[in-house]
Amino acid sequence: MSRIEARPDEETARTGDLLDRLLGRLRGGLPADAVLTDPDVTVSYARDMASFCPAGTPAAVVLPRTVEEVQHVMRTATALRVPVVPQGARTGLSGGANADDGWIVLSLTRMDRILEISPVDRIAVVEPGVVNAALSRAVDAHGLAYPPDPSSWETCTIGGNIGTASGGLCCVKYGVTAEYVLGLDVVLADGRLMSTGRRTAKGVAGYDLTRLFVGSEGSLGIVVRAVLALRPKPPEQLVLAAEFASARAACDAVCAIMAGGHVPSLLELMDRTTVKAVNELAHMGLPEATEALLLAAFDTTDPGADLAAVGALCEAAGATQVVPADDAAESELLLQARRLSLPALEAVKGTTMIDDVCVPRSRLGDLLDGVERIAEKYRLTIGVCAHAGDGNTHPAVCFDAADADESRRARESFDEIMALGLELGGTITGEHGVGVLKKEWLARELGPVGLEMQRAVKQTFDPLGILNPGKLF
Amino acid sequence: MSRIEARPDEETARTGDLLDRLLGRLRGGLPADAVLTDPDVTVSYARDMASFCPAGTPAAVVLPRTVEEVQHVMRTATALRVPVVPQGARTGLSGGANADDGWIVLSLTRMDRILEISPVDRIAVVEPGVVNAALSRAVDAHGLAYPPDPSSWETCTIGGNIGTASGGLCCVKYGVTAEYVLGLDVVLADGRLMSTGRRTAKGVAGYDLTRLFVGSEGSLGIVVRAVLALRPKPPEQLVLAAEFASARAACDAVCAIMAGGHVPSLLELMDRTTVKAVNELAHMGLPEATEALLLAAFDTTDPGADLAAVGALCEAAGATQVVPADDAAESELLLQARRLSLPALEAVKGTTMIDDVCVPRSRLGDLLDGVERIAEKYRLTIGVCAHAGDGNTHPAVCFDAADADESRRARESFDEIMALGLELGGTITGEHGVGVLKKEWLARELGPVGLEMQRAVKQTFDPLGILNPGKLF
Repeated sequence: MSRIEARPDEETARTGDLLDRLLGRLRGGLPADAVLTDPDVTVSYARDMASFCPAGTPAAVVLPRTVEEVQHVMRTATALRVPVVPQGARTGLSGGANADDGWIVLSLTRMDRILEISPVDRIAVVEPGVVNAALSRAVDAHGLAYPPDPSSWETCTIGGNIGTASGGLCCVKYGVTAEYVLGLDVVLADGRLMSTGRRTAKGVAGYDLTRLFVGSEGSLGIVVRAVLALRPKPPEQLVLAAEFASARAACDAVCAIMAGGHVPSLLELMDRTTVKAVNELAHMGLPEATEALLLAAFDTTDPGADLAAVGALCEAAGATQVVPADDAAESELLLQARRLSLPALEAVKGTTMIDDVCVPRSRLGDLLDGVERIAEKYRLTIGVCAHAGDGNTHPAVCFDAADADESRRARESFDEIMALGLELGGTITGEHGVGVLKKEWLARELGPVGLEMQRAVKQTFDPLGILNPGKLF
Repeated sequence: MSRIEARPDEETARTGDLLDRLLGRLRGGLPADAVLTDPDVTVSYARDMASFCPAGTPAAVVLPRTVEEVQHVMRTATALRVPVVPQGARTGLSGGANADDGWIVLSLTRMDRILEISPVDRIAVVEPGVVNAALSRAVDAHGLAYPPDPSSWETCTIGGNIGTASGGLCCVKYGVTAEYVLGLDVVLADGRLMSTGRRTAKGVAGYDLTRLFVGSEGSLGIVVRAVLALRPKPPEQLVLAAEFASARAACDAVCAIMAGGHVPSLLELMDRTTVKAVNELAHMGLPEATEALLLAAFDTTDPGADLAAVGALCEAAGATQVVPADDAAESELLLQARRLSLPALEAVKGTTMIDDVCVPRSRLGDLLDGVERIAEKYRLTIGVCAHAGDGNTHPAVCFDAADADESRRARESFDEIMALGLELGGTITGEHGVGVLKKEWLARELGPVGLEMQRAVKQTFDPLGILNPGKLF
């Protein structure tokens, strides 16, 4: 792959004097084991999990353990004008964590301490490298929950979640990462440390810079500490599966459930292609004759009653079969199937481009119909799994990366899905972020005034343009 | 009162040529009835409900009905470098809506249309002048709720709520205004129109400028349209009242309730002074012998069971009496008492300064004890009502504004309460905003780096400094 297009054609720290000075200065403030420079190693840190996103060979990977070490890295980067990309577990899907030739990769994975958990204040204070699942388990022991649960929750980090404003399966009831970030400590581009937000339940002191950093993909500063809101641990959820003879009917059921005032803890859709792919990968025995499988769950005190009401709505919308899980084990099996959807679709042709279009849920049926048309037009397999209750779809374009023509068609279909999403009043990204994959599309979604003001904000926080340049816009 | 201190000593549009040009240009793009210039009238728009906040005589009050008219006002203001303050119902408590000599007051009250309510998408699209209660009633008819409910909800506007990031009684379960604003149309300082955010449940396309505008007190742009998230209408809530022999014991109960994983729809505290004041104002027969009254409510499917559990926790914390309401009417009476708290405290000495300190709820007892010490030190009556579940207190300093010495002591005690809040890990404002009343304190809370970056953001959106100058910092 080629270098990231937006890098200016100037001297990089790939070789020569600049590289020597950079490594010398970095080593002056970091332990020896915290600066990796072997190109074979640094290149292995150069990209996240997105397809079609260029990357290069970073000059160094730094692995700080303290805030002061992060400050040292940023002071060095500012002094030498070397670009920096902060990284968590690199499970992102938009190329937001990719590094170009000569960059510093700033991996926060060694800053992985949970500093505090308070059941009375319902907060946790964490370093950015804490793995999502590790935090979830730690707060669970206190009867608390940290809801945001991206598919990669077993490996992805809280810092990465904050950088990309991650979502997950439970967002339909509990919201996304942004809603759980109360305050941040951020190292600015020039190495200064800034605190934003609060550790209280409420607070409106000044502009909400906390939220500005959430989803900023490392382009405004380096998050080194976060105060997160927690919730009481909900009861175990119970899942229902409903089969439909068309995706449109399943979407009608979603609309009926949400218009009916129900508050499911999960409302997910897998289309025929996805169901088949999951069966092929994991032999789970999902019903292959179905056109769409809807999973609904409730974690209320009487989930059986909620599932009965929602089951009736599914039947009214034309469900061919409605199967409530009998217990937590059956429920978990259905969720496993959903979580396997994207890996399973990737296995179809070896590579996927995973879209993340979110539309008003009333337009979900239109989007799914449109994706089917697009798949036909480009002669491609596109499987759709969706956080249906949020209108957030993940059409996964399956293709053989070795086939140039198919790859070109994949990219074109991917773009056409985003165009359709915007046409339906939606957004190009519900939870995966813009990275490099969607930057042309961000400009279309924002319009010229919005884009100009976003760029002005970037300029305000990163006047030298060293923080993850070429991402977002 | 004197003029707002931060106004630069330059020509204002109070008299002479600049005033003529200003009024001429404004009238060129606005209907005749939308430009008020009589100083007796304009001065009546010069302040909100905060004490100790200076204001002057505005040059004009403009009352646009369309986005284009707002754009005309901002183009005019930019061309002539005249400051503009956007206003809703002026129910704010920090002076954020106050105007200085020669300013344009931009009242959004005539832009009061509810443009859309969608039960499937669970959103409303509104103009900024819609009154909070009007929206609440309109969505109620669709089985939906717009939760944020500041005390002034019968008169305050959504635009004002967005400007100050308002809270209310139900925040402990449902969160604050910020959590319900999905997207905005904003007229920038120079008159350009920008859209932020989305109308989908989720979306992470670019920096979260929506949240940057929420709570920005009219200092970054003029909100002319908002997409708001709605929730299904919850069941009617049932309230319990618990009396305590000390404020500390009531705070212990609050901690026990929240640590116990309960999710009350309301958890409010009134201290002895507040209870007495409400009885004096409204003869409500609240128990005067008590040191603190705690109100807890649940809007669950079985609120009686929740109230029983919470009642037991109150008794364990030392409640002298626990009285669950029998029905909705009794519940509403208790809420009325709570809603009357601030007006009742104002009636004690004619004037109040209402603080808004929010602390981690584990420090609530320390704050209340500290406020009592401060009241003694300054020989003042300070009543405290609090959104106790959020740790958000409203100590109301009661004083006679005609008594210069008492007024001085009132201001000093008010400041000392903020100092205490910061010392306890809290914030100077949980929901009322900074305005002019707390701008010195904002600088203390943010620290020098935070303050510098906040100012830089202001400069980015308002390079000429015409949008509500002198507020926040």
